[in-house]
Amino acid sequence: MSDVIGILLFECQDQKGIVAAISHFLSLNDANIVSADQHCSDPKTGTFYLRIGFSVDNDQQIEAMRGPFEEVGQLFRAKWAIHPVSRKRRMGILVSKQGHCLNDLLNRWSIGELAIDIPFVIGNHTDQESLVHHYDLPFYYVPTTDKTEAEKSILELAKDSSDGLILARYMQILSGNFLKAYGKDIINIHHSFLPSFKGANPYKQAYDRGVKLIGATAHYVTEDLDEGPIIAQDVQHVSHRDSAEDLKELGGDIEKTVLARAVKKHAEFKIIRNAKKTVVF
Amino acid sequence: MSDVIGILLFECQDQKGIVAAISHFLSLNDANIVSADQHCSDPKTGTFYLRIGFSVDNDQQIEAMRGPFEEVGQLFRAKWAIHPVSRKRRMGILVSKQGHCLNDLLNRWSIGELAIDIPFVIGNHTDQESLVHHYDLPFYYVPTTDKTEAEKSILELAKDSSDGLILARYMQILSGNFLKAYGKDIINIHHSFLPSFKGANPYKQAYDRGVKLIGATAHYVTEDLDEGPIIAQDVQHVSHRDSAEDLKELGGDIEKTVLARAVKKHAEFKIIRNAKKTVVF
Amino acid sequence: MSDVIGILLFECQDQKGIVAAISHFLSLNDANIVSADQHCSDPKTGTFYLRIGFSVDNDQQIEAMRGPFEEVGQLFRAKWAIHPVSRKRRMGILVSKQGHCLNDLLNRWSIGELAIDIPFVIGNHTDQESLVHHYDLPFYYVPTTDKTEAEKSILELAKDSSDGLILARYMQILSGNFLKAYGKDIINIHHSFLPSFKGANPYKQAYDRGVKLIGATAHYVTEDLDEGPIIAQDVQHVSHRDSAEDLKELGGDIEKTVLARAVKKHAEFKIIRNAKKTVVF
Amino acid sequence: MSDVIGILLFECQDQKGIVAAISHFLSLNDANIVSADQHCSDPKTGTFYLRIGFSVDNDQQIEAMRGPFEEVGQLFRAKWAIHPVSRKRRMGILVSKQGHCLNDLLNRWSIGELAIDIPFVIGNHTDQESLVHHYDLPFYYVPTTDKTEAEKSILELAKDSSDGLILARYMQILSGNFLKAYGKDIINIHHSFLPSFKGANPYKQAYDRGVKLIGATAHYVTEDLDEGPIIAQDVQHVSHRDSAEDLKELGGDIEKTVLARAVKKHAEFKIIRNAKKTVVF
Repeated sequence: MSDVIGILLFECQDQKGIVAAISHFLSLNDANIVSADQHCSDPKTGTFYLRIGFSVDNDQQIEAMRGPFEEVGQLFRAKWAIHPVSRKRRMGILVSKQGHCLNDLLNRWSIGELAIDIPFVIGNHTDQESLVHHYDLPFYYVPTTDKTEAEKSILELAKDSSDGLILARYMQILSGNFLKAYGKDIINIHHSFLPSFKGANPYKQAYDRGVKLIGATAHYVTEDLDEGPIIAQDVQHVSHRDSAEDLKELGGDIEKTVLARAVKKHAEFKIIRNAKKTVVF
Repeated sequence: MSDVIGILLFECQDQKGIVAAISHFLSLNDANIVSADQHCSDPKTGTFYLRIGFSVDNDQQIEAMRGPFEEVGQLFRAKWAIHPVSRKRRMGILVSKQGHCLNDLLNRWSIGELAIDIPFVIGNHTDQESLVHHYDLPFYYVPTTDKTEAEKSILELAKDSSDGLILARYMQILSGNFLKAYGKDIINIHHSFLPSFKGANPYKQAYDRGVKLIGATAHYVTEDLDEGPIIAQDVQHVSHRDSAEDLKELGGDIEKTVLARAVKKHAEFKIIRNAKKTVVF
Repeated sequence: MSDVIGILLFECQDQKGIVAAISHFLSLNDANIVSADQHCSDPKTGTFYLRIGFSVDNDQQIEAMRGPFEEVGQLFRAKWAIHPVSRKRRMGILVSKQGHCLNDLLNRWSIGELAIDIPFVIGNHTDQESLVHHYDLPFYYVPTTDKTEAEKSILELAKDSSDGLILARYMQILSGNFLKAYGKDIINIHHSFLPSFKGANPYKQAYDRGVKLIGATAHYVTEDLDEGPIIAQDVQHVSHRDSAEDLKELGGDIEKTVLARAVKKHAEFKIIRNAKKTVVF
Repeated sequence: MSDVIGILLFECQDQKGIVAAISHFLSLNDANIVSADQHCSDPKTGTFYLRIGFSVDNDQQIEAMRGPFEEVGQLFRAKWAIHPVSRKRRMGILVSKQGHCLNDLLNRWSIGELAIDIPFVIGNHTDQESLVHHYDLPFYYVPTTDKTEAEKSILELAKDSSDGLILARYMQILSGNFLKAYGKDIINIHHSFLPSFKGANPYKQAYDRGVKLIGATAHYVTEDLDEGPIIAQDVQHVSHRDSAEDLKELGGDIEKTVLARAVKKHAEFKIIRNAKKTVVF
């Protein structure tokens, strides 16, 4: 068998014959299915989601499939994409003062755990500049004294050089205008188990409520703050012994793990998102 | 050393000399400290919480301590209680149609895992009657067609015969009047990770939001619905593959485990509660 | 779409065209794929595992597929099976004195969480007889004073009436002769995180070693004691505060959860086992 | 109240009056107890363990306590130590090629999560040198071509400059001679859930066995390889989808978290170890 891998993501109204048509297409095109995941949101009237990993001889074969596949897509009125895994997603990173998430991402990336390219790190503070330089990546300092100006600068830096952004504890809310202008996926890590404790200072909120678990949530950013489609969540047990400060430290551990998990899934084309939710294969 | 165990629960403004005074008192009264847990909510201005397990020769010794201990309590303006563990808490159980939590509690109780007495089970439906009879416990059917009447009946059954109540998926909201009239601890299991998804049908809410974890929360009941002091919480990973119905089933597992854990801590005098939070040793 | 569901389990040497051939077959037979899971143990030389859920109009259609599907099976030299989900697996249960796992299984079964039929419960003690009768199931007392006789009796009771057995803390080792004569799947719950603490009294072993987690393992029974293919495992944090007795109680919680999870997967035809491992979809 | 904190660790045969004597001593010495944890390994014949955090006006007061406390120690034939928290433990780190644990420790240390000083990092490869320099710490390259020579060099570097060592995936076994000569605590991270999969290549062992959870274990090093007292353990769910390589990557996450947790407990004087086990407060 051959070693070059392509990923097909496919989404349409559920109906008969989808898998037969697609596997027939791949077979005709000398592609061997190496992994397949599918999901139907409802057995009767639902949406059908499919991710197929297939192997072919070279990347040209993958590129060449897109044209002929249009017919299959139209037959089922599907949204679909074909990605060669050799073409890594370029994910820019935004950070503020705290570096635990950034450090974790960069270390994983450097040892090959995250199949992304990192075109830049932007900070609205310079605290993380030397860490970024340690990994030989460009760091841009874009202070947020004037927010409109800052977003304009970020857009210029990111628009063409990145396929998506990661907010690694970037403590600014990106405006609706920016989101529209940028127009690509942005992954955020929120430091609570959403929908609990939306908004500012969630660890303080958690402490005051006396919860026995704290959590973190990685989600795609939408205009509705803290309401975007959730990708990954996790929690950790806490007790009365933990101060609000302890919660913050314990939470930092979950934040970095959950964000890395979300970025990894995104990098491996394992997420299909819709307006409110995600399918994470 | 001796085998009869007493528990001292103690709470006051933090200040110097508390442990020295109490351990001196116990030493004078021929009691040996077998376990001790303490907590201070804030090192400067906080509240001090203490739980001491001590062994003496017989229960009379424990009863006899209460008088002399008044002096220690007054010295520190403390709230305190001394419990002989031989005197089990009598916890009545309220249930509706679903029996997974009730079944779990009764089985644990029957094999000695929960150090409580169960004076009765009250159901506003009869679905669980035969299970309760299997464990040779009295079952009272108190329908809630007239809520005021129902609460009156429950109060009559429970007021003198129980030291507390467990709501084992009892799908009724107890009125403020009832809470005042009953005046003892009531433990509820809420089928979400509070403060997420308060109110009705939390699994449907969780499904609609697309969360990746679902949870359950055991808490003391107060007049503020779903706002009482939290005792225990846990969660379980879910995915896009799980329907709202699956969430309910998976959630049932967490509900019964979390409720049992809370009841066990309550039974073992390991909880000190205040208006909004709990210290769980 | 139609409501009757069949499950195809399929296993062969990995090669091109498998999914295309099978989905083509199902499409021709008016079956709609409602779920599909596949796994390849190694991208180059591995074994291919497939589970497909499909819907048809009635069970007769499922029965009628088996003949024609032989050709597909032979084409790929596959092991395969087609199960109508309406035909529940008949799982007999064996138990000794302790009933926490049995109680959990029976309660889940009674509320529809486990899609099995339970033809009988066999105990080598009578402790659980009344619980079994509470669920209106037959209980057979088969003491193990003479082990050969006991296994003969169990074989007679189980051979034709069951499709598999569940050892719900059955504290006897079934002989190789019995396993051969019975010849169907047997699921056991071992009270440790295998391969740690094989053999007798694992909680005592865990206590003596001072581990900080204890676990339980559900596995298929083979002649190699505690070496059968693992289906499910879980653990729980413990500390120096927990006595060997506490470990046993905490472990009981994991045992029942893990066993129920394994039985559920087995009931839903979600496991493909080979000599040493399982694929659990 | 005062801000300077001291920690008393105390261990003796359980007997009456210990807490009374110690709290009396502290009260006499103007020390206020701010935290207390105790444990008795067995209510009858066991060992008593105590950790008390107390506040005084200055470190001199803590130093001055040691002399007078001797009397209390002798009274109960105790092993004890008094540590001012201002005097951080100096923990040297040993590393090989892989840096995920080292990177995690250094980042936590740099943001104040680990209350240790790091006098040096020693590597038997140079892969991690630049990371260490990024944190402005000394890196010593001590290759292990000649093991005896290497241990001699490490001993020279570490003997006086460190209070303990952390093996952050140091892939060498330290000899009994080294352990004796160094004579202080050494914390190792083993990449399996001990006692499962001792020895080399545990992830391969785990993959071959088909386990559904993998884990990591932080323990003190003793001459018995992989048999030292366990400090912390954790696990992660895996499935048939995970290759041996995936297990290694997933395991890396647990390794770094568990090692950091163990180092933090050690740094905060929260561990009392004996020959085979630990008490971790």
